[in-house]
Amino acid sequence: MARLDVKIPEVEAGSYPIFIEAGSLCGVWERLEADYPKLQKFVVTDANVVAAGHLATLIGDNSPPMYSIDPPGEISKHIDTVIGIIEQLEKAFFGRDTLIIALGGGTVGDIAGFAGAIFKRGVKVVQIPTTTVSQADSSVGGKTGVDSSISKNAFGAFWQPDTVFIDVETLNTLDDRQFCAGLIEGVKHALIADSEYFEFYEKNIDAILKRDKDVLEEIALKNCSIKASVVEKDPTEQNLRRILNYGHTIGHAVETASGFDLLHGECVAIGIIGAGMIEEEMGLGGGRLGRIEQILRKLQVPVRIPAEIDKKQLINIVKRDKKAVNQWPKFVLLEEIGKAMCKDGQWAVNVDRDLVERILTDLY
Amino acid sequence: MARLDVKIPEVEAGSYPIFIEAGSLCGVWERLEADYPKLQKFVVTDANVVAAGHLATLIGDNSPPMYSIDPPGEISKHIDTVIGIIEQLEKAFFGRDTLIIALGGGTVGDIAGFAGAIFKRGVKVVQIPTTTVSQADSSVGGKTGVDSSISKNAFGAFWQPDTVFIDVETLNTLDDRQFCAGLIEGVKHALIADSEYFEFYEKNIDAILKRDKDVLEEIALKNCSIKASVVEKDPTEQNLRRILNYGHTIGHAVETASGFDLLHGECVAIGIIGAGMIEEEMGLGGGRLGRIEQILRKLQVPVRIPAEIDKKQLINIVKRDKKAVNQWPKFVLLEEIGKAMCKDGQWAVNVDRDLVERILTDLY
Repeated sequence: MARLDVKIPEVEAGSYPIFIEAGSLCGVWERLEADYPKLQKFVVTDANVVAAGHLATLIGDNSPPMYSIDPPGEISKHIDTVIGIIEQLEKAFFGRDTLIIALGGGTVGDIAGFAGAIFKRGVKVVQIPTTTVSQADSSVGGKTGVDSSISKNAFGAFWQPDTVFIDVETLNTLDDRQFCAGLIEGVKHALIADSEYFEFYEKNIDAILKRDKDVLEEIALKNCSIKASVVEKDPTEQNLRRILNYGHTIGHAVETASGFDLLHGECVAIGIIGAGMIEEEMGLGGGRLGRIEQILRKLQVPVRIPAEIDKKQLINIVKRDKKAVNQWPKFVLLEEIGKAMCKDGQWAVNVDRDLVERILTDLY
Repeated sequence: MARLDVKIPEVEAGSYPIFIEAGSLCGVWERLEADYPKLQKFVVTDANVVAAGHLATLIGDNSPPMYSIDPPGEISKHIDTVIGIIEQLEKAFFGRDTLIIALGGGTVGDIAGFAGAIFKRGVKVVQIPTTTVSQADSSVGGKTGVDSSISKNAFGAFWQPDTVFIDVETLNTLDDRQFCAGLIEGVKHALIADSEYFEFYEKNIDAILKRDKDVLEEIALKNCSIKASVVEKDPTEQNLRRILNYGHTIGHAVETASGFDLLHGECVAIGIIGAGMIEEEMGLGGGRLGRIEQILRKLQVPVRIPAEIDKKQLINIVKRDKKAVNQWPKFVLLEEIGKAMCKDGQWAVNVDRDLVERILTDLY
């Protein structure tokens, strides 16, 4: 079992552990009983995770109170779902001694984490991510949030988990599309922080697509390590942490404009190509875009905006980006593979609006 | 002008200032423009505060975007109001560079503070409390929260203000009932932490009721100092901070059971007498209850539960108290006037259920 400690001064213990081991899920409940004997346990999961059998693996013969998000996915990542979870906790007389156990993908983690952040002014949360995207991304960093009826992540909080358990065997129940889309956050980590890790993807692409356990454990560990090292330096995203949004400005807009027909990772892949095109236009490209596009194509994700997405709508959404300042978001760009660009001390930089609009046209 | 710095390691600067000065409100907007030049300002207030003229005093010739809570008061302290504020911010394209300015009483501060805590994962908030209760209580501590359809403060977060401005002249527009009820949190501060401050109330009761500016400034400063010293030691209410809930366990339940016909401070007054009766029953009373009851009576607040409140309902509400552990809340008790009781290192202690139910009967 690999263990990684994420150093976050905000949490009581000063850090929290991430445990990574294939096949470990069936032992987690016993561990929670031992580690949190005084807390009332409440599971938040979704209908897909239940159908995949992961809830049964986690709880065994136990029958804790729970909330299963239905329908699963982005459509339920809404403040109304959080209200539903909290009202269920209240009806069951849960108090501040609650432990919320989030079992599922990124949306389960975001919803359950945010519910934990605001229920009775905050209760402990354990995250058990079961998808490639959540094991790469949401295990570390404490970002939680849900959408309003108007935009993504309008509601949110920084709320660190108390422990994270990663079992890469849960990835076996994902279909190929979800599995591959979730790997894109890892590619993004490689691009912003570690050129050797990018080469790891190039070398091991076949083993990855065959879902080789050892390779997936290595990827999980690498993703958590890179993200932890960034988050530790800037837990509340004042500056450096923004590099984790590489590919996300355009990516988020495409995701919203697609009505969430496209998966998050698929949109980030398109956003990574968009950012690469911006870099080339600004003379920062260095000819690497082909190499990046090749690995994304091997991972079977789209690298262009689908024709059916309306460009005007896309630009309107970019203006409402959660990191917008004066109604226009800044962009994270690369200096080279493995290194995000820092300009005048800032990791997210202004890009000319006309240039962005031009790239959005070229990206179709 | 008095200035008090509240030391909170969680805030970026390590502390935030509270400025206390009679007649200062008309100069606050200029100061905000100077102190927060880069932030987009959004005012949250309520219909009462607007009618009292305080909004006009604050903004002068400016016309910032704003949200006026209507109807004012506890009935609007609901998650739906927070959603309304955040959707209005989104529609006006406000981003992370938002400064929320909360002008009003405790509910305005709670609602606006919580909106600030969860909008885009947190934006800066300036608190300008305009009532006795909010100047005594909610200026310090960073507790924010709103009710669900099931119980009080089901949703909440610890979110420290960036600056607090207190102008005791805003208290002149309160009616006598609100003015007096709001003073009870100050009496509570005296009871748990400062016997000389309790004597200050006894000596200055006439000047207080005449709303003498200097006496009210002294009270504001004393309240903020006592609360700050407690909160600094225990910002997230792990233990010591619970003493601030003296009188609140029964008080909150009475408040809810009354359908919020009674004011918060009135209910805390009843809760203080209830706690005193528990102390007497447990042999901890020391004959001080008469003295406490006398000052509360002079402040013209009720000291008994109104007959129309149903006792069974009251007990059910006590079970759902926000600090409930295993479906029964702990109680803060006094050792003597000016000193809360600590038992086995705990500032909130178990009290026999039968005893509490008996006291609730006697308290009618």
